[in-house]
Amino acid sequence: MFATLKFAALLLAVVVCWATQDYDYNDAEIDEEPTLGDSPYGSLWPLPQKVQISTVVFKLSGASFHIFDAKASSSGASCRLLQNAYRRYDEYIFTSSRKQGQNKSKKALASDMSELQVWITSADSECDSYPSVTSDESCEFTGMVFVFFHFSHLADTLIQSLETFSQLVYKDEYGAKSINRTDIHDFPRFAHRGLLLDTSRHFLPIKVILANLEAMAWNKFNVFHWHIVDDPSFPYLSRTFPQLSQHGAYHPYTHVYTPSDVKMIIEFARLRGIRVVPEFDTPGHTQSWGKGQKDLLTPCYSGASPSGSFGPVNPMLNTTYDFMSMFFKEVNTVFPDAYVHLGGDEVDFSCWKSNPDIQKFMEQQGFGTDYSKLESFYIQRLLDIVTTTNKGYMIWQEVFDNGVKLKSDTVVHVWMGNKVEEELQKVTEAGFTTILSAPWYLDYISYGQDWQKFYRAEPLSFKGTDAQKKLVIGGEACLWGEYVDATNLTPRLWPRASAVGERLWSDRDVRDLNDAYSRLAKHRCLLSGPATVGLCP
Amino acid sequence: MFATLKFAALLLAVVVCWATQDYDYNDAEIDEEPTLGDSPYGSLWPLPQKVQISTVVFKLSGASFHIFDAKASSSGASCRLLQNAYRRYDEYIFTSSRKQGQNKSKKALASDMSELQVWITSADSECDSYPSVTSDESCEFTGMVFVFFHFSHLADTLIQSLETFSQLVYKDEYGAKSINRTDIHDFPRFAHRGLLLDTSRHFLPIKVILANLEAMAWNKFNVFHWHIVDDPSFPYLSRTFPQLSQHGAYHPYTHVYTPSDVKMIIEFARLRGIRVVPEFDTPGHTQSWGKGQKDLLTPCYSGASPSGSFGPVNPMLNTTYDFMSMFFKEVNTVFPDAYVHLGGDEVDFSCWKSNPDIQKFMEQQGFGTDYSKLESFYIQRLLDIVTTTNKGYMIWQEVFDNGVKLKSDTVVHVWMGNKVEEELQKVTEAGFTTILSAPWYLDYISYGQDWQKFYRAEPLSFKGTDAQKKLVIGGEACLWGEYVDATNLTPRLWPRASAVGERLWSDRDVRDLNDAYSRLAKHRCLLSGPATVGLCP
Repeated sequence: MFATLKFAALLLAVVVCWATQDYDYNDAEIDEEPTLGDSPYGSLWPLPQKVQISTVVFKLSGASFHIFDAKASSSGASCRLLQNAYRRYDEYIFTSSRKQGQNKSKKALASDMSELQVWITSADSECDSYPSVTSDESCEFTGMVFVFFHFSHLADTLIQSLETFSQLVYKDEYGAKSINRTDIHDFPRFAHRGLLLDTSRHFLPIKVILANLEAMAWNKFNVFHWHIVDDPSFPYLSRTFPQLSQHGAYHPYTHVYTPSDVKMIIEFARLRGIRVVPEFDTPGHTQSWGKGQKDLLTPCYSGASPSGSFGPVNPMLNTTYDFMSMFFKEVNTVFPDAYVHLGGDEVDFSCWKSNPDIQKFMEQQGFGTDYSKLESFYIQRLLDIVTTTNKGYMIWQEVFDNGVKLKSDTVVHVWMGNKVEEELQKVTEAGFTTILSAPWYLDYISYGQDWQKFYRAEPLSFKGTDAQKKLVIGGEACLWGEYVDATNLTPRLWPRASAVGERLWSDRDVRDLNDAYSRLAKHRCLLSGPATVGLCP
Repeated sequence: MFATLKFAALLLAVVVCWATQDYDYNDAEIDEEPTLGDSPYGSLWPLPQKVQISTVVFKLSGASFHIFDAKASSSGASCRLLQNAYRRYDEYIFTSSRKQGQNKSKKALASDMSELQVWITSADSECDSYPSVTSDESCEFTGMVFVFFHFSHLADTLIQSLETFSQLVYKDEYGAKSINRTDIHDFPRFAHRGLLLDTSRHFLPIKVILANLEAMAWNKFNVFHWHIVDDPSFPYLSRTFPQLSQHGAYHPYTHVYTPSDVKMIIEFARLRGIRVVPEFDTPGHTQSWGKGQKDLLTPCYSGASPSGSFGPVNPMLNTTYDFMSMFFKEVNTVFPDAYVHLGGDEVDFSCWKSNPDIQKFMEQQGFGTDYSKLESFYIQRLLDIVTTTNKGYMIWQEVFDNGVKLKSDTVVHVWMGNKVEEELQKVTEAGFTTILSAPWYLDYISYGQDWQKFYRAEPLSFKGTDAQKKLVIGGEACLWGEYVDATNLTPRLWPRASAVGERLWSDRDVRDLNDAYSRLAKHRCLLSGPATVGLCP
C-alpha cells in the first residue's frame, strides 16, 4: 500500500476539474458549455468592482521584490496579521507551486517593480482583533511603479487586496513574473460570504479544514460556518462536558476537535480575514448529544412504555436549560465571533407526541396539540440564554417561520429550496437580516458544469424595497457531509464554490458566463497548484 | 501554497466516500439506503463463488508469517510475477497502511499461522507471459493450519487468490492480525472485467494510472482499456510518427506517454494479472491526429472552398491506409495483448458530405448517398490491415450495426444506453463475443449512493440461447475524461467501480444490497488506507 501512498501524493489539489472544450462522445447529453476565450481580466476571481488593466508592464524579481509597510502606514512590523500575510503572498508569488497564468505582455519594454508598499490609513489597524460582519473590506490601489494599497479601516482588507495583487501576476512568454499597471477600486457586494462544512456526518481532519480555509481566502470567502456537531457524531471536545465527545464522537481521541485544535483553526482563519461561526444545532439533530448527556433528549414511547430511542432535546426539564446555559457559556468563550449559529431546523415532533410527560406538559402550557408551540417554547428559552452571553445568533429559517421572538440583530438563514423569494421577502419585511443558502447546496452533485447553476443564482431577485434588499447581508455555500470526507471533500468543493464566491463579491451585473468560464479556468490553475494537469498554462 | 501541499497529502486515497447511515437533513431527497449490518462475509469483495468461513481462528505474526512456494509447486523463486506478488501482499497484510477491518474473533483460543504455501500445479506457470482472455482464473483454497492455494493453470490466478486471502485477515479486539479457517472455491463469472480510462480529454500522469491499476487488482478487474487518444489530444508518443504527439499532445514533452512509460504501465499491470488493451479510435474522434499528420483527415468544405476545418479520417486516399499500416504495425509491437480496440464510434458524416472529392469517390464506389457505406469501406480496410498484424480487435457497437464484415473473434463493445438487450441479442445471434459498458458509464455522477445502480445491472438479462449468453465475455466500467483529471479521478472512481467489479466476478445471484453495502463499506476502508476517516474500523 505504500505504493498507493506515493501515487496518491499526486492527487492532492484544491480543485475539481472540468473539460475546457465540449467534445461529443458516445451517449452523453452535455449541456451547452460556455466558450473558453481570453478574458480581458486574466485570472481575476472574483472580479473586482472596478478594474482597469493598462498595457504598461512591470517585472517582478524574486530577489529584489518585497512587500512592506509604507512609512506613513498606521500599522507595521508589530502586526502579526500583516507580516504573516506579506510572507504568505511573497511565497505564493515567487517560491511556491501556486501557478501563474501565462500571458503575452503587451509591451516589449518593461520596468522593474521592486516593492509593494502597504499603506494602512485607519487609525486602528486592529491587528489582534477578529474580522466581523461590519469590517470595511473596500480597498483601492492604483498601479504605479510602486503600488499603494489604501485601507480606510481594517487590516483584514489587506488580505483581499494581496490576493487580488497576486492574481494579477503572470508569467510572460519567457517565464518572467510580470504585472500590468492596474487601477482597482474594490469592495464586496455582500458582507457575509460563507462556506458551511459539516464535521459530524464524517469527521474532517484539521488539515482538510485548514486547506479549505486557504481556498476560501483565495476566493474571498470570509465566514467559515462550522456545522460542528449533529446527529451522527459530536466531535467538539467540551471542557465543561467532556463526556459529550467521549461518548458522542466517532472516536473519543482521534475524531475530536480539542480546545487547541479549535484555537488553531480560528487563528488560521483570522489571519486570512475569515470569521469562524460555529453551529450547535438544537433541539433536533442532537442524537449524538444524548450519548454523553443523560436526560438531555426526550425519551420516545412505544405505547405506554419507553421505546429505548430518543427524540429532540427535552424541552420540559429545567436541567435542559441549566445544561444549555453552561454549554453556551463555554461556546461564548471558545469562539470569539460575535455570532453563533443555533440551528433550529427540521424538528421531528413524533417522539414528543409519543411521550406522556410531554403531552401533560403541553396541556399545562396550553399548547393544545400544536407542537410547534413547544418547539418555540424551547427555542425562546435558548435564545434568552444565549443573549445573556452577549452573542448574536443565526438560526435556520424554520425558527423565524414558527414565529419565535427574535432579537433584532438575528440573522435568518434561508435554506429551503421552495418559495425562496417569498421567504426572503417575509424575513426582510419583518426587519431581519438574512443570508441565503438555498441555491448553493454544493453536496448535490450532478454531471457536467454545475458551477453555472450556482453562478446564475441572484440573491436579490425577490420583490422588496431597497431597505429590504439591504437586509440580505450575503450567503453561504453548504457542503453537507453525507457523502464527503477527507478523501473527496476538497476536489468536490473547488472550484464549484468559487462560483458562489464571485456571486457574493462582484457586482450584480457580472454574469457573463463566457468571461467567467475563461477566468475560472485560469483561477482553477492557481487553486490547484502542482496537481493541475491538462490545459493549465 | 506549500501549506496546501502538506494538507493535501492527507487527501490522497483511492476511494470516494459515502455515509454509513441515513440521516435526515434539510431539503435532501435521499434515496432509500441499504442497511449497514455485519455481513457474514466480512470485507470480502467481490464475493467468491463459494466461501465457508469457520469459527477457527489463526493468528498471523508479522515476524514469523511468510508466503512462499510449496515444495511441490511447479513455479518458484525464479518467477518474478510470483515473488513480486508475495512481497506485495506481505506488505499489505503487515507493514503497510492498508487497513484491516476489526472483528470479534469467535473463539478465544487461537493457533498461529506461520506460513502461506503457494502450490502451483500447472505444468507451465507462464511467469513471463501476459494475461489473456483465456487465462484460467479459478482457484481453490482450504483453510488448514497451512493454507494451500491450488492453481490448475496460470500464475495470474495467484494474484486474485492472494487478494482474497488478504481480505480475510482482520484485527481482533486486541489488534492482533487474525484469520478464520476458510474454505474457498472461486472463479470469475466473466473473463473480461475491464475499466476504461481516457487520457485524451485530460492527460493523466502515470502515477494516477498506476494507482488505479492497483485499485483494479484489489477489485479483481483484469483489463485496462486504455482510451489513449481522441479528439482533444494525442499523448501517445509513436516511434514511427513522433510528430503525432509533438503536435497533437497538450504538451510535447510533459503530456505524453513515452515508449518506456507505456512499457512500465504494461508491466505494472501484468504483475497484477491485468491486460492492457489500447484503443486507437478511428475514423472519428481523430482531430488530434490531424495536427501532426498531413492529409490524414478529410478537409471540410464551406460551399465550394475548404473551410479550414477537418472531419474524420480521409477514407479515399491510399496514403491513409499506408499510414494506418505502419501505425498499427507499431501498436502491435508496443502492446503485447492479443487485442487492440479500434473504436469506430460516432462518425459524423457532415464533413464528408461537404467535400466534393469525397462526393466523387462515393459515386465511383457506387455508395449513392449512404455515407455509412463509406464508413464501412474505411473500417473494412482498417480491419484487414490490423488482421495482418495478428491482433484481434474490439470495436464499438456501431461498426457491427453498420454491417461491416468482422473476424469471428471480434469483440463487439456495447455502450449505447438505449435498446441494450436488443443489441446484445443481435450481436450474439450473429455469433460475436461481446462486452457490455452501457450500464457502467461512471463519469455520469449523481447525488448519493449511485453504486447501487451499477450493482443492479445484469449483463445476461437479454433473451437468447445458452450459447448466446456464453458469448457475453464480460464488461467494462468507463470513466470518460471530460470532467476528471489527476485532481479528482481516483476518489470519483472508487469504490463506485467496485460495484461493477463484483457484478462481473461474483455469481449472478449475489444481489443482496444490504449484504453488499456492509461488505463494501469495509472494502472501502481497505482501499482507502490512511485517508479513511469517519467510521472505518
